[in-house]
This record gives sequence, C-alpha cells and structure tokens, in this order.
Amino acid sequence: MSLNVYLSGEIHTDWREQIITGAADLNVTFNSPVTDHGASDDCGVAILGAEDTKYWHDHKGAMVNAIRTRKGIEDADVVVVRFGEKYRQWNAAFDAGYAAALGKSIIVLSMPDQQHALKEVHAAALAVAEEPRQVVELLRYVQSGVLPQS
Amino acid sequence: MSLNVYLSGEIHTDWREQIITGAADLNVTFNSPVTDHGASDDCGVAILGAEDTKYWHDHKGAMVNAIRTRKGIEDADVVVVRFGEKYRQWNAAFDAGYAAALGKSIIVLSMPDQQHALKEVHAAALAVAEEPRQVVELLRYVQSGVLPQS
Amino acid sequence: MSLNVYLSGEIHTDWREQIITGAADLNVTFNSPVTDHGASDDCGVAILGAEDTKYWHDHKGAMVNAIRTRKGIEDADVVVVRFGEKYRQWNAAFDAGYAAALGKSIIVLSMPDQQHALKEVHAAALAVAEEPRQVVELLRYVQSGVLPQS
Amino acid sequence: MSLNVYLSGEIHTDWREQIITGAADLNVTFNSPVTDHGASDDCGVAILGAEDTKYWHDHKGAMVNAIRTRKGIEDADVVVVRFGEKYRQWNAAFDAGYAAALGKSIIVLSMPDQQHALKEVHAAALAVAEEPRQVVELLRYVQSGVLPQS
Amino acid sequence: MSLNVYLSGEIHTDWREQIITGAADLNVTFNSPVTDHGASDDCGVAILGAEDTKYWHDHKGAMVNAIRTRKGIEDADVVVVRFGEKYRQWNAAFDAGYAAALGKSIIVLSMPDQQHALKEVHAAALAVAEEPRQVVELLRYVQSGVLPQS
Amino acid sequence: MSLNVYLSGEIHTDWREQIITGAADLNVTFNSPVTDHGASDDCGVAILGAEDTKYWHDHKGAMVNAIRTRKGIEDADVVVVRFGEKYRQWNAAFDAGYAAALGKSIIVLSMPDQQHALKEVHAAALAVAEEPRQVVELLRYVQSGVLPQS
Amino acid sequence: MSLNVYLSGEIHTDWREQIITGAADLNVTFNSPVTDHGASDDCGVAILGAEDTKYWHDHKGAMVNAIRTRKGIEDADVVVVRFGEKYRQWNAAFDAGYAAALGKSIIVLSMPDQQHALKEVHAAALAVAEEPRQVVELLRYVQSGVLPQS
Amino acid sequence: MSLNVYLSGEIHTDWREQIITGAADLNVTFNSPVTDHGASDDCGVAILGAEDTKYWHDHKGAMVNAIRTRKGIEDADVVVVRFGEKYRQWNAAFDAGYAAALGKSIIVLSMPDQQHALKEVHAAALAVAEEPRQVVELLRYVQSGVLPQS
Repeated sequence: MSLNVYLSGEIHTDWREQIITGAADLNVTFNSPVTDHGASDDCGVAILGAEDTKYWHDHKGAMVNAIRTRKGIEDADVVVVRFGEKYRQWNAAFDAGYAAALGKSIIVLSMPDQQHALKEVHAAALAVAEEPRQVVELLRYVQSGVLPQS
Repeated sequence: MSLNVYLSGEIHTDWREQIITGAADLNVTFNSPVTDHGASDDCGVAILGAEDTKYWHDHKGAMVNAIRTRKGIEDADVVVVRFGEKYRQWNAAFDAGYAAALGKSIIVLSMPDQQHALKEVHAAALAVAEEPRQVVELLRYVQSGVLPQS
Repeated sequence: MSLNVYLSGEIHTDWREQIITGAADLNVTFNSPVTDHGASDDCGVAILGAEDTKYWHDHKGAMVNAIRTRKGIEDADVVVVRFGEKYRQWNAAFDAGYAAALGKSIIVLSMPDQQHALKEVHAAALAVAEEPRQVVELLRYVQSGVLPQS
Repeated sequence: MSLNVYLSGEIHTDWREQIITGAADLNVTFNSPVTDHGASDDCGVAILGAEDTKYWHDHKGAMVNAIRTRKGIEDADVVVVRFGEKYRQWNAAFDAGYAAALGKSIIVLSMPDQQHALKEVHAAALAVAEEPRQVVELLRYVQSGVLPQS
Repeated sequence: MSLNVYLSGEIHTDWREQIITGAADLNVTFNSPVTDHGASDDCGVAILGAEDTKYWHDHKGAMVNAIRTRKGIEDADVVVVRFGEKYRQWNAAFDAGYAAALGKSIIVLSMPDQQHALKEVHAAALAVAEEPRQVVELLRYVQSGVLPQS
Repeated sequence: MSLNVYLSGEIHTDWREQIITGAADLNVTFNSPVTDHGASDDCGVAILGAEDTKYWHDHKGAMVNAIRTRKGIEDADVVVVRFGEKYRQWNAAFDAGYAAALGKSIIVLSMPDQQHALKEVHAAALAVAEEPRQVVELLRYVQSGVLPQS
Repeated sequence: MSLNVYLSGEIHTDWREQIITGAADLNVTFNSPVTDHGASDDCGVAILGAEDTKYWHDHKGAMVNAIRTRKGIEDADVVVVRFGEKYRQWNAAFDAGYAAALGKSIIVLSMPDQQHALKEVHAAALAVAEEPRQVVELLRYVQSGVLPQS
Repeated sequence: MSLNVYLSGEIHTDWREQIITGAADLNVTFNSPVTDHGASDDCGVAILGAEDTKYWHDHKGAMVNAIRTRKGIEDADVVVVRFGEKYRQWNAAFDAGYAAALGKSIIVLSMPDQQHALKEVHAAALAVAEEPRQVVELLRYVQSGVLPQS
C-alpha cells in the first residue's frame, strides 16, 4: 500500500523535512505547497504582470498557488495540516476544510495551547499529533502495521 | 429563484441580524451555526456526559456542532463567511474550505487589514465584502437583478 | 432547518417511539425500516413467490427491504443506528457503514458493554448516546440550539 | 485486467494467507487491515499518547486504523468480507456497508449458520462463499475466465 | 416516505395503468416515457424539421425523448422496467443499465420464458415480478410495511 | 413532471419572453441570467467598490454574476442556450460546456449560418432549434407527449 | 494518450479479434466479458455450488460475471457495444445504458436493419459503425489524428 | 508532482509547440485535440460514411472528436484554453465551461482586446496569460516553485 501525503500549512520551520526524512524508508510520496514565502507571494505578478493594488497582487498569486494546492490535496490519501506558532494560518484551516469535504484522511499537527481554537478542525481529523515524529509513526503504522518501540 | 444562504463565522457581533433584516423582502432562507457561545462549547458534554479532559470536552461539542454545520453548508447555494476582529477563527476558514470543495458560491465578509492573511480564502470566493449591507445588496442583485441606488 | 432522520437497527424495543414522541415538537421527519419482524423476513416470498431454500427465501426478502432502507438512508441528514441487547445486528453495522460512505451524520445509540466491539462504528459517528432521550436532545440542539435543562 | 482486492474482517484464522497463496499466479494486489490484534487496539495511544478511559483509548485507535481501512476499501475493485466464528464482528459488517455504498463488488465469506443473520449483507454481495478456495476461484474466473476443474 | 417511480419499457399493453390504479391509495408519484408510439417516433422531425434519411429521422426523435427519459430516471427512487412479448426492447434494457449505474432500486417486470436472456438485467434488480399486481404490492410494502392478504 | 429550465445566452432580443409566454400553460419554471446589460457589467463595482482597471471592473462583475448563473444551471433539468446575431457570445458557449459536463439536457437555439462554427456545441445538445416556438414545442412534448398540430 | 476500451456484447463471431488485431500498433488496452458461453453461464454454480432452479443457477452466474463487467466498463475510456444477428442481447443494451450513465464515450457496432430498434442506444453513442474495421479507424483517429487512406 | 495538461482552442498558430518545447524539462504530459483542420472536419464521414447534408457531416465529425476531447479534459489537471485572432472559437469557450464544471484548474491564453468579451471565461480561470511563455512559467512554478528570472 503506497500512500500519497500532502503536507499543508506552516512554512517557517523544518517540520516537512523532519517528516520526509523520517519516512524515507516508507513507500510514501509527499507533496507540499511552494514553501518559499517570497515566491509564493509574488508568483502571480512575476509571471502574469504587475498590479497597482496589493489586493490584486495577492489575489493573482493566491490563484496561481491554488493550481498546485488543489492538485496536491486532490491526489492525496492523507493530508497533514500543520499549525505553527505565528501568523493567522487561515490557509491551513482552509486546506483542512477542503480536504474534509473531499473525504481525505486528515492528520493535524498542532500545539496544545491551540486546542480550543482548533476544535472544529480537530473534529474533522483522524489523528491529532504534536510532533513531526508522531506523523512519521502514524504513516509507518498505517503502511506496515508496525508500532514504535516503546 | 429562491436562495439558501449559510452564514458562517464570527458570532460576537450582529452581522447576521443585519443581513437577515436587510434581506427580509427577498426569497432567501438563512441558516447559521449555533451562535450561543456557551451552548456551542458545552453541547457535547451537556447531552452526552461529562469528560475529564478539556480536549475531549471540546471534541464532543465540536462533533455535535458538525451535524448542524455540515447540513447548513451542504444545503446552501451561497455560503457567507465572516471574519471578525477577534479570535483565531479557524472554524470560519475551515468552513470556507469545506464550501469551496463542494463548489458552493462563497462570499467573504472581512476587513481590509485581514486581506493579505486571507488571500487564499478570498481566491476561493466569488465576492469579497466589508459590510453586511453589501452582502444584502449581492443577494438582492443575484435574485432580482436590481442594483443599489447610488 | 428541517431534518430528515433515519432510525436504523434494533426492532424489539420501543426506542423509535421514544425518540419520535420526544421530538414531536421539532421540525423533523423520521423514516425507519419495516419493524414487523415477520413481515420483514417474509416480504420477498409473500409478494414474489415461494422459494425452496431458506437462503433464497431470506435473500428475496432482504432485497425487497433494501428498496426501503436505501431510500431511507440516502434521503437522511442524520442516521441514528441503535444496537440492542440481542441478536448479531450485522444489518445495523452495515447501515452505519453505508451511511458513513455517503457522508451522513451518524448518531450511534449503544450500551456501554458494547463499546470495544463497536469502536470502528463509533469512530464514524458524530455522537454516541446511551439513551433515546439523548438522541432527542441532540436533534433539539442541532435544530434550535437549545440545550436540555440541567 | 489487474484487480485490487481488499480482505476485510476476521483476523484470527489464516484465511487471508490461503487466498493470497492460492492467487499467487494471478495479477491481483491484496490489501488488508492491520491484523496484529494488539497493535490494532493500541495504535492510537502508542503513537499519540495515553488516555485515561477505555473509550478514548479505543477511539483513538479506531480513528488511526480508519486511515488504512478507508484507503484499502476505496482503492479496491473487490472487497472480500470474512465473518468468522467468534466475536461480534461489527467492523466487518460496517466495512461491507461502506463498500456497498461506494459501489464496490463484494464477496462475502461466511458460514452456513450465519446465513439468516447476514441476509442484508449477502443481499449487497455479488458472491457468497464458504471457503477461501472459492474466493481464489472467483478471482481466477473474473480475471481469466477459467473455471476450476471439476 | 413518498416514492417517485419511473415506469420504463413496453408501451403496448395497459401494465402502467394497472400499476397506477392499484397504487392509487399510496403516496407515489409515477413518471413514464411518452407512450404514444407514433408521437414518440416522430417527435424530432415534427418539431425540429424533416430529415431525408430514416436514420436521422429516428435519431432526432430519440434525442428529444431522451430529455424526458433521463429526467424521469434521474428523479426516480424506483425504476420499474417492463419487458413485454414483442419487439426487441433494447431501450428497456438500456434504461435498466442506466438506472443501475445511477444506483436506483430496480424492479423488473418480465415473463418466465425471458428469464435466461434477462439474467444480467435481473442481476441488477432488487425484485423480479411477473404481474403488475406484484409491483403494486412491492410499492405498498416498501411504503407502509403491509403485506398482501394471503 | 415539472421542469426547471435555464435560458442562457443572448440578451438583446425577446426570445426569452417568447418562450416564457408560449409555455405559460406548462408546469415549467424558468431561470435566466440578469438580462440588463448595464447592471450585468457593473454589478461588481456598484456593490463591492470601484476598480481602477477595466479588467478588474469586469472581473468583479463576472464573479458576482456567476453566483446566479451557476445556481441557475445546476438547478436546471434543461438548459436552453441561445446564440444571436451579434457579439462573440463566449459566455453562451461556456454555459453550454458547463451544462454538458453536469449532464444537463441541452437545447441549442441558433441560426443556420452558425452551424459549422457551433458543431461542437450542437454535438452536446439533445435538440437544435432555430425558433423560440420550437423550444416551446419541445418543452410541451417533453412534459405532456403532445406534438404541435401540423 | 493511451486508451482503455471495453468490448461489450455479442460473443459468437470474431469481431473482438478483428479489432484487437487491427489496433495492435495503437496504445490501447482492451477488456471484454468472459466470451466462453458455457463458462459464463455456469460460473456461479461451478464455484459457489449447485442450484435446484434454473433461475438461481443463472442468477449466481450473472452476479459473478458482473464483477468483471463492472470493472471493465468503469475502467474504460471508450465502450464498444456490438449487436449481432442472433439472440435478444439485452445484456449489450444494458451495458450501453450503464456506460451512458457513467458518461463513457460509446461506440455502437450494429447492423443497418437494427437501426430503428436501436435508436435510443444510438442516441447515447458518439459513433455508430457497421464494421469492426471502422472501430479500429476510430480508435486510430482518436489517438493519433490519422484518417484512413481513401 | 507530475502534471497532465490539456491544450484546448485555437489551431492555426504554433502556441502549442511553444509551450511543449518550453516545458520540455518539466514532468508534464500534454494532450490536445486533433489540430489538422481538414481531418478534424471530415473524420466522421471519412470513417463512418458520407452524409448528404453539411449539418450531419459536421455532426458526425464533432461527435468523433468529442471522444478525444472529453478524454483529454477529464484526464487533465490543468486545462489551457487559447483564444486566437480568428474564427468564433465557440468550441474553446465550450471546453472552458466543461473544464470549469469538472473543477479543473484553468489557464486562459487570450489577447487584451478580447478581455471584455471573455470576462465570464476569465472569471472561471486561475490565471489569464497573453503569451505561451507565461504558460510555461506557470507550469514551471506550479511544479517546482521556481519563478522566472527577472
């Protein structure tokens, strides 16, 4: 059983690398949004032409990024959504809702103090983890039935 | 053409009442989540029994609220998602993602200083408004083709 | 918000009547399988002709009952699945799986000592209750936001 | 014509091995739930942290197992559901209902004395077998049109 | 539980009238194809203009009739497909396949000597009847749980 | 059999009125886009605020109109697409493609000299008419089986 | 562009071989029902046990064959349905209806004198051919854009 | 992340070659309609037999081309729709509508003076470009996150 996993959410720490490295021996394909913050913000105007207002500058970029994000979520068996310490992260919650409506298996990677605010997102998840290591352990168990050594 | 509209998001101001009152002459049915904050937080344990931990207390409530929220979004032709001034509002963004994946027409009601953080949500919307009055005007135009008097 | 509720499962106690009576003031439509055990077992051969073997006797009846069951589940917003004290009740678990794959909101009505054996069914539910009264309270809350008086 | 087959249900006898061995010369991919009973029960708490109550202990595990089960059923062309001699096996009947709602071809592997209690599940199946050998013969016939030598 | 029933197939006997009359006391809505043979054959050219060849004459009519037939099947809970004594009746078998792929509950009304030739169609049905009276009894049982007096 | 019909396309002649008047005795509900050309062009900026560029001016309006158009097409049993003498009418062809992918029954109302250029659109239609009168006759026949008097 | 083609219908002439041989240089995968008439009729009882009545004998076989047929049609991009000179061929028409409801591209291979009786099936097809050679030419054109040498 | 891209629309300039050549280093599969204008117009009659009228000549060809077009769009992650300088190009707008209803990511390649007439099509797109080079840059960014050197 191969798995296709989309890694959504926070782009300022190395949680994706930790998961991808930890799962290197598994039969898992990972996809992610573009994680270069500057490129992600400016892709629309860089390719399709400048805008006078910040709103349409942002809009053009968000639309272009949606080509990648939708493909990533729609192809995924499992969507991992990471909530970090900073920013409002509405795009992470949006991706979680999008994945939920498509019936994807969702793993949320969040912090204990976010718990109350995330309760609706957690309610749509099949697992809520706090550490990237746990996500690796989940993927290993799902694929091979092997639990971590205690 | 009757319209079914779901009013998602912020529950601490009277934006829903403004829209419902303003659209009183239209052929529109409105649905909303439970907007009594206390009832919404405690519904799970109040009905199904107490929990020792805050996590499962919240979880039980969020699951019960999901019965209403999913029904409301799935029945809707238009989903209005309001982002207010306070709280993290991940449930609002989650609802927007859920509605987007179902192909619903989305109207976002947000504030100018939220614009950059909401750009992915805005990119999934057919209209971005700042005032409840504009949502009423949109519904009136969609239903009857009549624009506001300038 | 009107609700369409399908009451699946055990047919030997009055749990359906308790729920329907308790919810008499709500805007809820209830549907159920045929609860006359004899008619349910014999409907196939009674209408379509006798069979020599018990297997096809049962099969013809189960197929006819499926016309009603599928319609009931597919039309429902909420599927309540009741596990009683007796019999194997595989049809109840089957209905729960069927409802889950269709994305229906599921309420399981079961007994504490069934908990471990029902854990996969519970995992697909948005609420797990032990008493019909709780189902009524859930439907009332989902529809009107009113919690039971403590 | 390659076939993807999910082997659902009873985990205490070697029926899966009999089928996989018997079908070794066919172009069939098999998937199954985790069949290590202990790991399956404890996977939630082993990875995501202990729970104080048996209910949430079980629930966390069932949710994690659902990641694998859903993927297995959704990818399958054929779902074989085995009912064994022991336990209540509501998860097997749940899987059958889930598979039926997705339109999967279902083969039930059951025992003659379970027939009346399984009639609704049988009514959703395209074949009802009593021996793993018959499942192999079905897969061989479906793939190559060759019937067993009488 | 109201039922929407589509009566497909043979148009040269009064089987539809028998069913509609027999079910007059039930909460059932019936739809049918146009049963005026001449109008059904000529509707395309009568409205949209004559054709030089029989093929396009027939084609135009079949396309126009498809507007009604598709609507009738897609709206139906139950599709009754009648095979009569005459003609090839490929349109009846086509409707049965169309209904099957949409997951509709199918009742076939056929004659004993058609059994072998119809086995694939029967295999997609939930009931196979020989008399219009039986279809009425099925609808009555599905709706009210009442079996015919023996 | 009631019918819901969406009247898409050209907005500068009275073809919609001809059809609605002609079908006044039928059980048909009609929906249409906003046919006030000025309102349709300006609705976005009139409600949501002015734009500096024509592109975003147009874009905002087209997005708002899409709320109505999508609802109209998705609710329809039959989509009539009218191609007139003027303008490029890409929105009409877009609506036809949208309706075709949703499996709607399509009637095209076009002129003989448009035939070659419309051949892909015609290939997705169940009827191609030249006069509004013919659309009325089609709806009457589909609903009642009655052909026009010759 | 690779194509997956299902060859449904008549099993007593070599039309399948003609198409498969003619398309040997194309990137096309072909699937078919079991074409050994005897095996196809007896597969149910040969594997799952004898039946006393012809009806259930046939039924068991038709159900087993449906595992292969459904998989073949659901995987297909193009479904070719052949109507031959003999038998009632309701299974061919059923497959055409099933394929049509799934939105498959249908090619009908039939004879001129069947035209009127097949008009509803033809109306669901994108091409109607009389010779296997034409089916090969269609597949070659669809895949490579090359027309037959005149 | 591999991408499947369908290149719809204008067939008289080398825009497809520019994109395919420019994206030669990417992991992208391209599909297109048949771009030989003569073959595309005549494919129906060349393979399936001549027609007396231009209408059915065109119709037969359009139906055959639809086999390829539907497959191309349904398999695509991204649909690029090119509007050129000549012809009415209703098939391009039709393809855009078809792709939109299927939820495909759409890139429109159009000219500034077409902007007002294309506003409904643009409103369904995630990017609007004027040069084939920009489409290549979009595909490169979507796949690898790399922006063009400014």
